[in-house]
Amino acid sequence: MSDHKIPYKIYLEENEIPRYWYNVRADMKNKPAPLLNPATLKPMTAEELGAVFCDELVSQELDDATRLIPIPEEIRQFYAMYRPSPLMRAYRLEKALGTPAKIYYKFEGNNTSGSHKLNSAIAQAYYAKKQGLKGVTTETGAGQWGTALAMACSYFGLDCKVFMVKVSYEQKPFRREVMRTYGADVTPSPSTTTEVGRKILADHPGTSGSLGCAISEAVEVATHTPGYRYVLGSVLNQVLLHQSVIGLETKAACDKYDIHPDIIIGCAGGGSNLGGLIAPFMGEKLRGEANYRFIAVEPASCPSFTRGRFAYDYCDTGMVCPLAKMYTLGSGFIPAPNHAGGLRYHGMTTTLSQLYHDGLMEATSVVQTDVFKAAEQFARIEGILPAPESSHAIRVAIDEALRCKERGEDKTIVFGLTGTGYFDMTAYEKFHDGKMTDYIPTDEDLAIGFAGIPSINL
Amino acid sequence: MSDHKIPYKIYLEENEIPRYWYNVRADMKNKPAPLLNPATLKPMTAEELGAVFCDELVSQELDDATRLIPIPEEIRQFYAMYRPSPLMRAYRLEKALGTPAKIYYKFEGNNTSGSHKLNSAIAQAYYAKKQGLKGVTTETGAGQWGTALAMACSYFGLDCKVFMVKVSYEQKPFRREVMRTYGADVTPSPSTTTEVGRKILADHPGTSGSLGCAISEAVEVATHTPGYRYVLGSVLNQVLLHQSVIGLETKAACDKYDIHPDIIIGCAGGGSNLGGLIAPFMGEKLRGEANYRFIAVEPASCPSFTRGRFAYDYCDTGMVCPLAKMYTLGSGFIPAPNHAGGLRYHGMTTTLSQLYHDGLMEATSVVQTDVFKAAEQFARIEGILPAPESSHAIRVAIDEALRCKERGEDKTIVFGLTGTGYFDMTAYEKFHDGKMTDYIPTDEDLAIGFAGIPSINL
Repeated sequence: MSDHKIPYKIYLEENEIPRYWYNVRADMKNKPAPLLNPATLKPMTAEELGAVFCDELVSQELDDATRLIPIPEEIRQFYAMYRPSPLMRAYRLEKALGTPAKIYYKFEGNNTSGSHKLNSAIAQAYYAKKQGLKGVTTETGAGQWGTALAMACSYFGLDCKVFMVKVSYEQKPFRREVMRTYGADVTPSPSTTTEVGRKILADHPGTSGSLGCAISEAVEVATHTPGYRYVLGSVLNQVLLHQSVIGLETKAACDKYDIHPDIIIGCAGGGSNLGGLIAPFMGEKLRGEANYRFIAVEPASCPSFTRGRFAYDYCDTGMVCPLAKMYTLGSGFIPAPNHAGGLRYHGMTTTLSQLYHDGLMEATSVVQTDVFKAAEQFARIEGILPAPESSHAIRVAIDEALRCKERGEDKTIVFGLTGTGYFDMTAYEKFHDGKMTDYIPTDEDLAIGFAGIPSINL
Repeated sequence: MSDHKIPYKIYLEENEIPRYWYNVRADMKNKPAPLLNPATLKPMTAEELGAVFCDELVSQELDDATRLIPIPEEIRQFYAMYRPSPLMRAYRLEKALGTPAKIYYKFEGNNTSGSHKLNSAIAQAYYAKKQGLKGVTTETGAGQWGTALAMACSYFGLDCKVFMVKVSYEQKPFRREVMRTYGADVTPSPSTTTEVGRKILADHPGTSGSLGCAISEAVEVATHTPGYRYVLGSVLNQVLLHQSVIGLETKAACDKYDIHPDIIIGCAGGGSNLGGLIAPFMGEKLRGEANYRFIAVEPASCPSFTRGRFAYDYCDTGMVCPLAKMYTLGSGFIPAPNHAGGLRYHGMTTTLSQLYHDGLMEATSVVQTDVFKAAEQFARIEGILPAPESSHAIRVAIDEALRCKERGEDKTIVFGLTGTGYFDMTAYEKFHDGKMTDYIPTDEDLAIGFAGIPSINL
């Protein structure tokens, strides 16, 4: 209001929607390692990748040299339905915490998919349509990516087949109906509709599923159905590229209002939101123009950065996808049932893995009861009901703000609020009823996953 | 984008949040009839109303002369969390319909309560707190009002007891958890916790409830518990006053971008959204400064405007509340189970009733399968999943736009998109599965309700 120089909600104009995505790999001295063909162990070629992914997306996937890639006008027009998303100043949270820190969050939840996932979904659907495809397949964890893709496919008139991690499918029955509203087919994973699904079910009867399983099933269907390709909502370079729109808008808003972040925080499952949020800031750091602390927050139940290994590993449980060099818990690692469905992936995008390995960013893990405490606190103070995934970032943002209070430091904290929790009320219910438990895998638990990591040295 | 003079989303600045609510009654020649004491049949005094409602809200309720009422700064600051809400230009819907009409919608769903209800909830909670009360009671239909009030009470540290219409309570289990996240108590209505609830259950075993029943229960608890008052999310003059913020922002956005609405459309349950949306435009019409067509849209299953009687009637099923002169189906009318929970009220706010009676606005009714067809079409084209209630307005906006197409008229249509449908997926599921049926009461059905309308002539 009138007593603040900076409004509660910073909205850029629609003509300030970025015209280019920023490819942070172009500024990395140590490039992310290439994907490997699981049969030959040689770098995947464009032709090989083209059997699974759309052609234009393959070229984005392999391009680690072009800094700026134009956003097609059709995509910018779709973005204009819900972008620029607001950069919020958490005046109320600051006051409630009594911290001298300034807290901002980039809110990506104000669209029907409920998260940032729509930013890449629409790009991938656009390129699939442009290539003349009939449809796409994918997996979804929390259901946000599936919803986003269903919306994007509906917009361009593409078929959309979604494999949904079984635990989320059961906890979020209404997500399926949202996807159906947009015309998608949704199957709980592992399913009996694919070879790989049947194998996983035989090996792990009663499994609640994982993103790795669902990916394997979606890839199988895409590669066995003419006119279909597979699309993925996280992990890949192309997804980080599309998600750079989050960081570019955040940077533009910061520049416009003379805001200088010290710490930038995001939750990390596959890494797409975090990679997108930090991209232009990381670019400045890589080019020596500015310095920032970047913090990846992951669940203690699935700690790929903080307890995983930096190694070539399979991206999916079925081992049909290429290998990626990344922080991983092993493709055979199946996390304990954890309500943050979108953070159940065993690995981490190669770009962030390399940046973390090179000491350019930090990572931390948090247990989910602490996460839900922060979520409820945030909901009551800031008025937005956050997704459990996003709440990992809230937890650490609050912790950092309290550290500033202890030390009397007025740092500027920016975090990514990736989505809303309207479809996560089963998890909130468990939390309210005191029935939520924390799970931290033992070293022995992790050893089982690590045993499946192939021994490859290049 | 750059090729449009008017953006997809018109956002006003935070300092353009209205500083005054507009009281349309001040400009009405024929004032809405006063509320009557059910015991004496004389106009309710401020003192009598004060036993049920907060003092400041009572004075707003009775004031039909003051045109502009200042919005306290604390409320404006809360509004700044989610207001000004965007006025959206439905370019895509226009194109899909092939209509020369220009379609705008004021979107009130971008807040955690998911609807416009928060606009009045925060005002009522503020005045309750200011009066030093311990807590408030209320009813909720679709759950949007209950959620909004829970958020508002949490913000000001007030207790919040919510009676939720049983059909909604059962269809929307997650709503309860959202309210709990904000610390509210939620009871399905009719319940056995109140005298009036027990009576209704005895008279109508197996009833799915109605807003009228829930109101009676909430009032009973408020008037029997020290330090409590009752608050209501619709119907009352004070609520229409608070909701005028919707119309004032819409008007400001129209003025700023030189938009001249011809037709303004809103769904009508108790009338709060419609009354708020049209208020300043109706003011111009009443003062002879401009002309508009106003269309209230109600469900065919609960057609108070289109098939009801203009008469003094009880506001609640239990007949404990004051009588209001309004379009009513009779306080004993219990609508068939209808998924638009927020439009199940037997009556209509006195202000809109008077305006409709005086020929200053129109009304129409629609069946719910047609409503859901429009909802799904809108979701796919405009990307927002609408609440069933809001979708009544979408249905008629589309119909009017198609009429413009037939006649080659480029009218400007503005409608209220009051909320999102994330918690209405059970209804969408029925629609997708072809299990949704339409219900239009027969004249005999209506006669039962009419029989309960008291014979009063003033």
